[in-house]
Amino acid sequence: MTKENETKNTLTLELLGCPSVSDAELARIEEIHEGLTSGDEAFTGWVGLPYKGESEETARLKAAAARIGSQCGVLAVVGIGGSYLGARAALEMCGAGGAAPGGAAPGGAEILFAGQNISGTYHAELIDRLKDEDFCVCVISKSGTTTEPNIAFAILKDLLIKRHGRAEAAKRVYAITDPEGGTLRAETEAEGYESFVIPPDVGGRYSVLSPVGLLPMAAAGIDVDAVLAGARRAAADDLRGLAARLAATRKALADGGKTVEIFEHYEPALFSFAEWLKQLYGESEGKEGKGLFPAALSFSTDLHSMGQFLQEGNQIFFETLLDVKAPPRDVLVPAGADPLLAGKSMNEINRAAAEGVIAAHRAAGIPIARVGVPDLSPHSFGALAYFFELTCAYTARLMGVDPFNQPGVEQYKREMKRLLTNN
Amino acid sequence: MTKENETKNTLTLELLGCPSVSDAELARIEEIHEGLTSGDEAFTGWVGLPYKGESEETARLKAAAARIGSQCGVLAVVGIGGSYLGARAALEMCGAGGAAPGGAAPGGAEILFAGQNISGTYHAELIDRLKDEDFCVCVISKSGTTTEPNIAFAILKDLLIKRHGRAEAAKRVYAITDPEGGTLRAETEAEGYESFVIPPDVGGRYSVLSPVGLLPMAAAGIDVDAVLAGARRAAADDLRGLAARLAATRKALADGGKTVEIFEHYEPALFSFAEWLKQLYGESEGKEGKGLFPAALSFSTDLHSMGQFLQEGNQIFFETLLDVKAPPRDVLVPAGADPLLAGKSMNEINRAAAEGVIAAHRAAGIPIARVGVPDLSPHSFGALAYFFELTCAYTARLMGVDPFNQPGVEQYKREMKRLLTNN
Repeated sequence: MTKENETKNTLTLELLGCPSVSDAELARIEEIHEGLTSGDEAFTGWVGLPYKGESEETARLKAAAARIGSQCGVLAVVGIGGSYLGARAALEMCGAGGAAPGGAAPGGAEILFAGQNISGTYHAELIDRLKDEDFCVCVISKSGTTTEPNIAFAILKDLLIKRHGRAEAAKRVYAITDPEGGTLRAETEAEGYESFVIPPDVGGRYSVLSPVGLLPMAAAGIDVDAVLAGARRAAADDLRGLAARLAATRKALADGGKTVEIFEHYEPALFSFAEWLKQLYGESEGKEGKGLFPAALSFSTDLHSMGQFLQEGNQIFFETLLDVKAPPRDVLVPAGADPLLAGKSMNEINRAAAEGVIAAHRAAGIPIARVGVPDLSPHSFGALAYFFELTCAYTARLMGVDPFNQPGVEQYKREMKRLLTNN
Repeated sequence: MTKENETKNTLTLELLGCPSVSDAELARIEEIHEGLTSGDEAFTGWVGLPYKGESEETARLKAAAARIGSQCGVLAVVGIGGSYLGARAALEMCGAGGAAPGGAAPGGAEILFAGQNISGTYHAELIDRLKDEDFCVCVISKSGTTTEPNIAFAILKDLLIKRHGRAEAAKRVYAITDPEGGTLRAETEAEGYESFVIPPDVGGRYSVLSPVGLLPMAAAGIDVDAVLAGARRAAADDLRGLAARLAATRKALADGGKTVEIFEHYEPALFSFAEWLKQLYGESEGKEGKGLFPAALSFSTDLHSMGQFLQEGNQIFFETLLDVKAPPRDVLVPAGADPLLAGKSMNEINRAAAEGVIAAHRAAGIPIARVGVPDLSPHSFGALAYFFELTCAYTARLMGVDPFNQPGVEQYKREMKRLLTNN
């Protein structure tokens, strides 16, 4: 064990009102884990990503991030799904508290997202926004042909070329793509973009600890070494044991009739982390008519919209709480407030809200898995991401589905292509 | 029928793969509607709000909005739940396309939200953000004692008083509260804040067409007369008939075993409208163990996270699609894109995505209620809000629950208060 594993402030897990799990189930997860780490199973490259921190590629990635910071104040990150949510989750969790979503950590470039939808209105406003900005582009796409990023990259490249000419524009483009195949790799070689690799054995929703997540993080000023150290911490036996326990509990809850899992938290800065979880779980488990429907709620905001349903509505769900022990900032409530609140810290009151909800929901018989998170640091981000990747892969295997394929995402794309071809 | 009812571009409803509804059920809804409009039922004041446009209070509201614009560039709106989501939904839908969430329409004040959570980190950043701004505060709370807005209002008032002194600070505070009772009404009278009334017979989640929603909208530069005209349009017999049909269909889907309703759209600007729907439906229906669990997805973004689950996962859900016919802006895809996409408009491609998803999901047997929305105008916002309020009240009554109470929201607050009192 390295000294990383001795860190006092680490992830914790408390299972409240959840079914117990058998040793046989936990032993089965040990077998699953051996399979995942054997190197023999497809798309398990993500398991080893935390250990790539010392590589030549990571050093080059940090240098590229520094260059982006010197070239421009804004980095437009083009990507969708796994090429979008992980970076966004990290930026919001570590960079800003949610009042300024997508904001950068001190010293980093401001990150804007593009190509995560096909809305003409969204992109017209984005173009307006970039008019007076000196910006670079980070395009993230395995193939280069996914509709949304393909369109957004073409638009942003067009803007850069009109402004700087083709050669200068190319110096402001950073591509993260397949090492060999695909149209984006071909263009990258032809135009001489600086590029990084999406490892072929890593699927999109498991790619946040590859350059897909790390380059936007580094460009925004987030310490990627700390992110990777956090992930390695989560790979240690004690936390792996918690991931196994949570996976077995989720399976037992599904077997017991629960059909919806709510990812919830009390920090707006975790909004996109919960969205990332929705993709990770929904896409890994939701096949062959199986899977827990993943939903996300941001408390206390959503207690004032969904609180009634949770307390007294149709009890089809359980809750997975991301419980941040030490948020980075605080405000003291001034004297003008309710005497019960005045003089207290907001974080203290937020803590009382969380404990109050746990008590009220336990009284209503709602199972709660409480994942304690030390803080909103890069180290905690890495630990949390890897912890949930493990948990997800374990549960999907227990459910008897492949955690790493997504056969159902092609149907609508085929229909869409047919419609566009006929027009 | 007035000429408003002859407007060509109006809401539409298509029910795809949904169970049929009986004439008896529709007749039952007619009775429900008569009850709602009889004036004899508690908390049905929202039914008449669209007709208050010519009132002296609305004229005063518009004057206050104009004064806010002349006093300050930023309006901090303090509220939570129904005192937050409706205004936010309107601002995003009509003011900005989602690239700049919460942005104002041209000519209006920029709106920032406070008091919708208890995060110290969020509010510390908000205070930083307001340091260099000349701001006003609009505080929205029936009682004045709800924890989140109580804290945020105390913080912002403190900032204003330190900067301007007490008398000048009071001129920058606009209160929307109970006409007679509560601590905020008492303070309003004592300090001489300009104030507007939350009608006592209107519950929070049905209050968007009262000053609760209208003052922030007007301050942001949104045409509130058009919002109210849109709501009156939705009250006409033809659209009321569609609301009844959708309500009966939702009930039939729930009776048939569906437990989750997904509100989905293809415009990021509808993000908060879908959040508003989650409160409206979740809080109105989720009691006595009943109700459809409301979820929201923003496409095409979330097709790349939840698309797999929808296509092939556990089929516990149906979809309610908000289908915008004419988004306000568009971008032409430049030549550098995939040849299939180059030269087309983004809205055309977004349309193909929507139609492709409908075809693929129908093939998977997913019921879809498709609500056609003409555009993202204030008129469409008013129509959509009132249409869904009617639909929600109808369905809740059909389910046999009270659409206007929320008995389950007090439990956690009691626990929270106990914890804070003991500290």
